[in-house]
Amino acid sequence: MKEKAFQDYYPDDVSHCYGCGSLNQHGLQLKSFWDGDETVARITPRDYHTAIPGFVYGGFVASIIDCHGTGSAAAAAYRAEGREMDTMPPLRFVTASLNVKYLKPTPMGVELEVRGEIVEVKGRKVVVSEKVFAGDVLVATGEVVAVQMPENMITK
Amino acid sequence: MKEKAFQDYYPDDVSHCYGCGSLNQHGLQLKSFWDGDETVARITPRDYHTAIPGFVYGGFVASIIDCHGTGSAAAAAYRAEGREMDTMPPLRFVTASLNVKYLKPTPMGVELEVRGEIVEVKGRKVVVSEKVFAGDVLVATGEVVAVQMPENMITK
Repeated sequence: MKEKAFQDYYPDDVSHCYGCGSLNQHGLQLKSFWDGDETVARITPRDYHTAIPGFVYGGFVASIIDCHGTGSAAAAAYRAEGREMDTMPPLRFVTASLNVKYLKPTPMGVELEVRGEIVEVKGRKVVVSEKVFAGDVLVATGEVVAVQMPENMITK
Repeated sequence: MKEKAFQDYYPDDVSHCYGCGSLNQHGLQLKSFWDGDETVARITPRDYHTAIPGFVYGGFVASIIDCHGTGSAAAAAYRAEGREMDTMPPLRFVTASLNVKYLKPTPMGVELEVRGEIVEVKGRKVVVSEKVFAGDVLVATGEVVAVQMPENMITK
């Protein structure tokens, strides 16, 4: 059986995110998985996600770090509670802060790999440190501070 | 005559950026302008730029901070040299680092205003501090450290 991505456990009402929602037909549909104690997502930018010709625009890199970060935060929070991601109550995270360092220009036409390390799970907060690789080349690093979603963001 | 946006001065070979390139038909086509000593851009997210229903996804906010930052950096560098943006040699910037703090959920269906303050213009580096408003509400702050584009990114 194919492993389910973190995002595939999200209920339908939170599956519309442009970056990672499985129900957003226009979006990136990022999929994140455990790989031992790290998390990993792989995605190939579309040809229009360009900065200048030949290179990926910075907002794309920031977006995948953001969504991989909140996904990893949710997975880590379930794991910290010893629960599977399909158990109740649901744990959903939003981004409090996002930091990205662009180390090298990110080439187009290459699958990008985002790797996440869970730095901290404390109360409603999870900190995820991330690296983005284009092939073997580390092109960006990032950190996401994610917090459990405030109840007033749930609209239905 | 209508004022030209910073991005409208970019040569065609650097006008393909998903976030702000005037030639990217799929992109956001962000337009940034001077407003006194500050810079400003206004944009309304499309309905699919959602996080959870009713709110804008974080990558969109990060993307507009990124592109408004590099655009503001270019404008500030020209201004520091006492030059108009259509004079040679061209000054083009890429992002070295991007920091975003999400203060409040960003509502959909509202024009967002990004305001930039030029913190520093030093050598090849420009630092831009930014605020994102949804109506009167400050929803995010950000900082972009932009550097002049390395020559090896120019592909033609």
